[in-house]
Amino acid sequence: MPSDVKTSEDTSVSFHGWASTGTANLKQWSYHPRPIGPKDVEIEITHCGICGSDIHTITSGWGELKNGPCIPGHEIVGKVVAKGKDSHHQIGDLVGAGAMVDACGDCDDCKAGFDQMCEKKAFTYNDSFKDGRGGLSYGGYADRVRVNGEYVFKIPAQISAAEAAPLLCAGVTTYAPLKHHGAGPGKRVGVIGIGGLGHLAIQWAHAMKCDEVVAISTSDSKREEAKKLGASKFVNSKKPEEMAAAAKSMDIVVCTSFDKNQNWAEILQLVANRGQFVLLALPEAPLSIPGNAFIARHVSMVGSLIGGKDVVQEMLEFAAAHNVRPWIEKMPMSDANAAVKHMMDGRPRYRVVMETEAAARQ
Amino acid sequence: MPSDVKTSEDTSVSFHGWASTGTANLKQWSYHPRPIGPKDVEIEITHCGICGSDIHTITSGWGELKNGPCIPGHEIVGKVVAKGKDSHHQIGDLVGAGAMVDACGDCDDCKAGFDQMCEKKAFTYNDSFKDGRGGLSYGGYADRVRVNGEYVFKIPAQISAAEAAPLLCAGVTTYAPLKHHGAGPGKRVGVIGIGGLGHLAIQWAHAMKCDEVVAISTSDSKREEAKKLGASKFVNSKKPEEMAAAAKSMDIVVCTSFDKNQNWAEILQLVANRGQFVLLALPEAPLSIPGNAFIARHVSMVGSLIGGKDVVQEMLEFAAAHNVRPWIEKMPMSDANAAVKHMMDGRPRYRVVMETEAAARQ
Repeated sequence: MPSDVKTSEDTSVSFHGWASTGTANLKQWSYHPRPIGPKDVEIEITHCGICGSDIHTITSGWGELKNGPCIPGHEIVGKVVAKGKDSHHQIGDLVGAGAMVDACGDCDDCKAGFDQMCEKKAFTYNDSFKDGRGGLSYGGYADRVRVNGEYVFKIPAQISAAEAAPLLCAGVTTYAPLKHHGAGPGKRVGVIGIGGLGHLAIQWAHAMKCDEVVAISTSDSKREEAKKLGASKFVNSKKPEEMAAAAKSMDIVVCTSFDKNQNWAEILQLVANRGQFVLLALPEAPLSIPGNAFIARHVSMVGSLIGGKDVVQEMLEFAAAHNVRPWIEKMPMSDANAAVKHMMDGRPRYRVVMETEAAARQ
Repeated sequence: MPSDVKTSEDTSVSFHGWASTGTANLKQWSYHPRPIGPKDVEIEITHCGICGSDIHTITSGWGELKNGPCIPGHEIVGKVVAKGKDSHHQIGDLVGAGAMVDACGDCDDCKAGFDQMCEKKAFTYNDSFKDGRGGLSYGGYADRVRVNGEYVFKIPAQISAAEAAPLLCAGVTTYAPLKHHGAGPGKRVGVIGIGGLGHLAIQWAHAMKCDEVVAISTSDSKREEAKKLGASKFVNSKKPEEMAAAAKSMDIVVCTSFDKNQNWAEILQLVANRGQFVLLALPEAPLSIPGNAFIARHVSMVGSLIGGKDVVQEMLEFAAAHNVRPWIEKMPMSDANAAVKHMMDGRPRYRVVMETEAAARQ
């Protein structure tokens, strides 16, 4: 643990949340946030979505926890209850925070709008701040959170607090690469995996007016829902005849599945010549890919990680204007372990959003 | 073997070459080419380079031979000795042929200048023609070759016949992706592997006026030669301190190494955020790559296969204008097995070009 962590705690207050110590069995835990800095905002949390990343982290699937107990959650919505002197936010605003809560603002990556690659960024949990003030980051399975107000976004009036939550991570994670790689008229988009990420990717691609939006799933049970979400086609990836019929037919494929046993050669066959395969979810084992999947047809595989802060704001406005909303199931945060288990069982269609006691008071 | 192969043979003539039946032990063999079509050209071969693909093919490293004995060789230079009525080539012209010798010219890929992805293309050897006339393709380890004249290129006067040969495959394979991905001022280019492909990639990147040209090799013995080729930096990929110093420093990395035990996570660290890693050589085993090598920094891996016919012509003119030449060792084609063994031992610096008896008569 960095030496400046303790000195950066604001011992005058305690936050209360659900912490992992390396397994999915969350325990109630109280902790001190860092003092409010001039640009910071304190949010009283009403809603927090459960993201696949939360599960990978709290089960140690992506590696051991970095800094002791981890308060997960990076799809955070709530009211501003305190702010630093330089923050533009207003007390009482309904705001959200996503998967990162700080960056330097000065480096080439920040200036290029890719602040998620800033070497001084802070992820929302299981991370530490690198802005010289020290301190650890704690997420949204809690009553409150303090973060850099530049990473806090006003929720458009058309979007409910509960529905806004998943947009902050799942939303921007799928919106950003589609926008960046040119999804729109003239393009055929494939979406692998219809879950928390995929069900939003289908909606974005449809709203962006792509020529085709192909939902790709291992389960026929998603066939009808995919159409409701805006898919123009459905491919069951376990059916060789459907896969063969769809070969080389998609200009951009976003992969939201983190199946570590994925047959990569087979799935890359879907990409059109010179097309792009965008990896959004991080499988817990290395990908095994024959070189010729890239070479013969100039297929590219590229990764994408959430989105810069400007893209988050743009995404929220696009969602408001085009009626893109996550499909959610609400559960009480007081029963966080049940909500996490529901997610781990793969049952939600398509996102679990936990509500705090503060939500009832709104 | 396709049923139309025999009927498409021109039994009035025999060509003589060095054939593989699945191992590197080449045997002298005589065979009939297909009849000369209206667009075709017959070349009396003076020179043929030995490409890495030849070795992968004749040793069955990429799989069994498709159509019986294989005459390898797709870096072919010689004189036009016969032509169909519609060919624009002139008898006596010094011309070259590369790794593909036919395509439909009508499909979307052909029209986009990516004829190497045409479903009706014919590779120069170990392949069959799909233009309705039937027949198998035989390569340049031979006295003569007959191919579609649209895939035959006039050699610029500034370039010798022997030096032109490696440009037809190794040259365009390295030139095309650098051009396509924007190598030039403002870009830092890395070249992995300094051999037949790599020593040309370094020269192209230098001639394209890239900000930096970094040669990456497992052997310090290439350090000085890399500088002579135009590299501004050298990284020994076996030295962790040199790899660490070069991390995230290259916008475009072309990989000419087909080492199947490559540590992909490590080598991808060289690519700058949002940069491109271009796979040019085809390892004989799948690549094992952690997903985070793509995701965290938006790195992309993309393949590239030779180049379309327009790019071949452009490349030859660029080579003539900018004095890009392969470094070659000449060996007699009459001792083809010795030349192949020299190549398989990894000794040439950097390309073996075989000369036929016809070369002596020029």
